[in-house]
Amino acid sequence: MSSAFKNCRTVMVTGASRGLGLQMVESLATGSFSPGKIIATARDPSRAQELQNLAGKYPNVHIITLDVVSQDSIEKAAKEVDAIVQGEGLNCLINNAGINVIADFETVTAEQMLENFHTNSVAPLMVTKALLPLLQRAAARGTGMGIHRAAVHQHHSLLGSIELYWGDRASTFKWYPYRTSKAALNMLSRCMAVDLQDEGILCMALHPGWVRTDMGGPQAPLSTEESISSVLSVIGGLTEKDHGGFLHYTGEPLPW
Amino acid sequence: MSSAFKNCRTVMVTGASRGLGLQMVESLATGSFSPGKIIATARDPSRAQELQNLAGKYPNVHIITLDVVSQDSIEKAAKEVDAIVQGEGLNCLINNAGINVIADFETVTAEQMLENFHTNSVAPLMVTKALLPLLQRAAARGTGMGIHRAAVHQHHSLLGSIELYWGDRASTFKWYPYRTSKAALNMLSRCMAVDLQDEGILCMALHPGWVRTDMGGPQAPLSTEESISSVLSVIGGLTEKDHGGFLHYTGEPLPW
Repeated sequence: MSSAFKNCRTVMVTGASRGLGLQMVESLATGSFSPGKIIATARDPSRAQELQNLAGKYPNVHIITLDVVSQDSIEKAAKEVDAIVQGEGLNCLINNAGINVIADFETVTAEQMLENFHTNSVAPLMVTKALLPLLQRAAARGTGMGIHRAAVHQHHSLLGSIELYWGDRASTFKWYPYRTSKAALNMLSRCMAVDLQDEGILCMALHPGWVRTDMGGPQAPLSTEESISSVLSVIGGLTEKDHGGFLHYTGEPLPW
Repeated sequence: MSSAFKNCRTVMVTGASRGLGLQMVESLATGSFSPGKIIATARDPSRAQELQNLAGKYPNVHIITLDVVSQDSIEKAAKEVDAIVQGEGLNCLINNAGINVIADFETVTAEQMLENFHTNSVAPLMVTKALLPLLQRAAARGTGMGIHRAAVHQHHSLLGSIELYWGDRASTFKWYPYRTSKAALNMLSRCMAVDLQDEGILCMALHPGWVRTDMGGPQAPLSTEESISSVLSVIGGLTEKDHGGFLHYTGEPLPW
């Protein structure tokens, strides 16, 4: 990864125990301009060995426990983040934690819909609310919009685009819980963009591409390194014009 | 209301105890070509006096109990609908039941998000799944798409459009639970359109306008009669070209 994050002093990545979250932390830690403090969250850090290895090697990686569907856990984590970032506040919150509940029209249950919505759509809202004072602290210093000041990024998916789910693209991934949760996440990101704009906090959603992770499967075209290299470049280059938007990992806008 | 429903033999409206659902049943019952069977659902019919009055006056109005967030209630209702429509099957399912949980960024809780999502986004899915055999039965007779054959209509809101929630339109109705639930409903409607297309079952979402109901408030520009007259005309005229779409009550397409 390049120098995209050189103006970002503090960054937090949720769901960093594996997959794209883990890759993000690794790429940030090994970049030529690594943020002063990289906060990586995991539901159970004791089981996140690769993340532990990274933190052992790079002292700017701080691991904290966070179960994004538990309000108690969110509030406890927010206090820990405060103690780590202190006066700097939080420049960049990456709401990456997510699950993929696979169920089609025939098999889907109400419980599956609610479970996926809770983790993918409600949790980013509750985490952002809890961290708002730290984002505000960072945003109070600086002008313009971007990760040099304060930004909230929703880790998203092209599968959440209602517009694109039609015709040739509609022959696969008929996942009701996942797709509805991601469409709701787009609205959530937009709502937060509306409400946080006056505070100078940039808010947007980004699709990382189809990546070879546990979630993406082995047939995906992108490696985690390729995806995250591009994702971090896009996040690093965000400006006012991207506020409230939904971008492809290449930086192109995506339809809702 | 006009003759828009003249080719529809059986129609079901959820959430018909008041507001737009009640108006829909009344307009259908009093129309010049009233469907042979109008099934109106209410969580507690004993408390739906106006609906009871309509059923007393118009014998084609059938009231059944349905709590859309209870799977037991959905399955029980589906059996009752089956007994009412019999060999005809169900030509038109109007997923109208919905709630509006009002909460902004500061006040919103995870529980409010989940509650609104369950009623507005999950329930239409579970109700449609339970009624699928009856929709299939109706769809087996007839060609093309529309309420002469089988159609599922999601009662929607312009507030669920992510695209439109920006700029001047973003100064009011900062309702996180409602807006996210309606964006998810758009995706749900699209998913069902993809999956039910081969069976000839039309599926789409429609915004009824801003209406003077308990939910819309007294300052809304449209009366329930004005809104529903237009809504029923649009539903009555649906064809293949509207399948998978999101329409204004005037018939114009809305952005996602």
